[in-house]
Amino acid sequence: MPPSPRVELITTGEELLIGLTANSHLSTIGDRLARRGVRLQRNIVVPDDAESIGAQFRESWSRADIVITTGGLGPTSDDRTREVIAEALGQRLVFDGEAEAAIRRRFEAIGRKMTPNNLRQAYRPEHGAIIRNPHGTAPGIWVEQDGKVLIMLPGPPNELIPMLEDEVIPRLAARGLLGSGPRHVQIRTAGLGESALETMLEPVFASYPGVEVAYCAHLGCVDVRLSSPDGRYSPTELQIIANHCRERLGGDFVCFGEDSLVKLIADHLRLRNQSLAVAESCTGGLLSNAFTDFSGASKLFRGAVVCYCNDCKVQLLGIPECLIKQHGAVSAEVAAAMAAGVAEHLEADYGLAITGYAGPCCREVRNRAGTVYIGLHTPHGIWSRKVNYPGSRDAVKQRAVNAALDWLRRELVRASSPEALPAPSVPETDPAREEALRLLGIKKK
Amino acid sequence: MPPSPRVELITTGEELLIGLTANSHLSTIGDRLARRGVRLQRNIVVPDDAESIGAQFRESWSRADIVITTGGLGPTSDDRTREVIAEALGQRLVFDGEAEAAIRRRFEAIGRKMTPNNLRQAYRPEHGAIIRNPHGTAPGIWVEQDGKVLIMLPGPPNELIPMLEDEVIPRLAARGLLGSGPRHVQIRTAGLGESALETMLEPVFASYPGVEVAYCAHLGCVDVRLSSPDGRYSPTELQIIANHCRERLGGDFVCFGEDSLVKLIADHLRLRNQSLAVAESCTGGLLSNAFTDFSGASKLFRGAVVCYCNDCKVQLLGIPECLIKQHGAVSAEVAAAMAAGVAEHLEADYGLAITGYAGPCCREVRNRAGTVYIGLHTPHGIWSRKVNYPGSRDAVKQRAVNAALDWLRRELVRASSPEALPAPSVPETDPAREEALRLLGIKKK
Repeated sequence: MPPSPRVELITTGEELLIGLTANSHLSTIGDRLARRGVRLQRNIVVPDDAESIGAQFRESWSRADIVITTGGLGPTSDDRTREVIAEALGQRLVFDGEAEAAIRRRFEAIGRKMTPNNLRQAYRPEHGAIIRNPHGTAPGIWVEQDGKVLIMLPGPPNELIPMLEDEVIPRLAARGLLGSGPRHVQIRTAGLGESALETMLEPVFASYPGVEVAYCAHLGCVDVRLSSPDGRYSPTELQIIANHCRERLGGDFVCFGEDSLVKLIADHLRLRNQSLAVAESCTGGLLSNAFTDFSGASKLFRGAVVCYCNDCKVQLLGIPECLIKQHGAVSAEVAAAMAAGVAEHLEADYGLAITGYAGPCCREVRNRAGTVYIGLHTPHGIWSRKVNYPGSRDAVKQRAVNAALDWLRRELVRASSPEALPAPSVPETDPAREEALRLLGIKKK
Repeated sequence: MPPSPRVELITTGEELLIGLTANSHLSTIGDRLARRGVRLQRNIVVPDDAESIGAQFRESWSRADIVITTGGLGPTSDDRTREVIAEALGQRLVFDGEAEAAIRRRFEAIGRKMTPNNLRQAYRPEHGAIIRNPHGTAPGIWVEQDGKVLIMLPGPPNELIPMLEDEVIPRLAARGLLGSGPRHVQIRTAGLGESALETMLEPVFASYPGVEVAYCAHLGCVDVRLSSPDGRYSPTELQIIANHCRERLGGDFVCFGEDSLVKLIADHLRLRNQSLAVAESCTGGLLSNAFTDFSGASKLFRGAVVCYCNDCKVQLLGIPECLIKQHGAVSAEVAAAMAAGVAEHLEADYGLAITGYAGPCCREVRNRAGTVYIGLHTPHGIWSRKVNYPGSRDAVKQRAVNAALDWLRRELVRASSPEALPAPSVPETDPAREEALRLLGIKKK
């Protein structure tokens, strides 16, 4: 296979630079290329004006093998990308009859009247070709010149994504510009910070000089990517190195690849035909929502109760009022009782609960912000543990959700292979262990 | 005020270029600068390698007045931004004792063991200064050289955002590099698409030649920004034009500025000492979570029930099984009953409910994907309405939540000033109106 082509993405749009909308083009295009073994080398976001677009295009075109632009192909007078880039390439714009027919058909199909400025979209550089747009009026443009490829795509994601997947990726592959899959091995881990993870894996990598290691923390996991830019290690050898890492990581190993904690939990539950219910307070629905982000969730996720007041805990989960009075709504005891209560009420095998202080709300609890208890009800027992997170309200919520998911994942892994991971999921050194063990004695109502 | 400085943002991170995470740094920094009257001129996303970072930094530094970099300040060996940029500036890296002390304090505070590689984060360019990071170990770096400013910030958003708001923006303002506030007036609307909104406001803008109008759709709202780049209209005059727009918009006007639908709902409820409870199925906790994203939510938000199975609707909300059997779980009747049931069980004044099909899960309901019913219980009655959205699972979930929030907002506005907005919130032309009116007769259990 030839060396990876250098790909640059130019995104135009004022709304991105003033923070009004997220740059989804970068995520989408970067992802689709990475899946085919090509790494996007650069993304540049520039304003909509002709000068910025022209200057950036000339720079990227001089450096890259493939340049992709998004946006600026609309019908209004401020959509100038087409004109500016044709000029930079030294090509005239010509009217494309086929594009015109497609635009007219599109307007007929959606029953809207075409205005004359829409026909601006039928122009393309003279040596370029049209990329069909089945979901909008602006066709894309494909130009090959100077041994390079230019791909111009419209901005709306519902138009861009199908064009990328159905036209652009296959055309690039046909020209031998894409690989068949990723050229790295990714190890997903949970439970260790980035630097602790590096310290733990250091001895493995010391035995394999030249292997490239990249760390990336996100969504409660830290990913480790192994690659061999100089080709010293084959994909099979990289996988062997990754297997060594896995052994060292023990329960902190989540998976190879991209699966989320929720996906892995769902796979475990589905395999065993078991179900889950959730009770949460400070995380407000975030834990519950994690389980409904994929289709088919309703087979294993029964539902959730978001208790934002103590009455709610009492009324919907049947938690004794005296338990809340004695220990407080944010306590190991109430977390365990919430997990057991929601599992019982919704007839689920597993119950996962979070209660805590996400952020400052009133004077009394300000110094307790970030204190969170997680409760876990399983067919084998009930536990709870305390965690504590610094940071903003959003950060505390997200980290509490991640911790709860990771705990449930570890329990499910342990339950499916008790001999492989005999250690209890609450480690010996954890100060919450004694409390948790004591809570093991809690009787299910 | 001097002409706007040219600001470029360099974002480093493999994870952005392969589409693993969204580039939130661009949105955050672009937004915070725009609010202070400065427009980010360019954002460049480059891989983590030293060569890419160095080349891009030299290019941006030669062109811009202010360069901001994010990421690459972590403790691991692939975090190279600090070294590469110091070299490009011709500065040595020196060990900063104060930064070291802060890092040690940080580890103590979170009760984790510091590994030696964490002390790499205490290095800074010799003529630079440290930017405190109260939420993480990596301090930021501030360098002034060649009449330009370099600002280096760590990647995690929960660390970056407070540093940006509490340190960077004030320091830039103190040097006269920012304006005192936005130079535009923003009108937030809901319920109209971008082009319908443009058509509705056209007559207003026709009377004020030269006013610049930008539309931006996001989070269930469409924002209209009015500005006067050539200074023809003063801020007061822009506000008067915006007031004309408000009058024309009626109930579709949400607010001037940036307030979210949830913020406005919370303000209304707080003013009247009223409370809210939520029941949802296909949105999985997303609606509930919207109400817990700000502190103080527990005063007015009582809680939520996420019903991912029919049993859950019956058991937790007391919805008669026969109602679900007769009309289906996704129906106007069940949506209304969910809203009433959750309000009653959680003793809330308002109940808001969503039931629907978010995305394809099995053959029977595939062609009903995107069908959603919203139920609303108020002290004055119970309604429900049907909406239908195209798009992905995530898109349907988000749009259903936005529609529910906007409906509740309209009801609260109407209830607080019935004479100002006498029209019913379900417009005459809405096909769901008759169904909704019929449902008005539903008795509260």
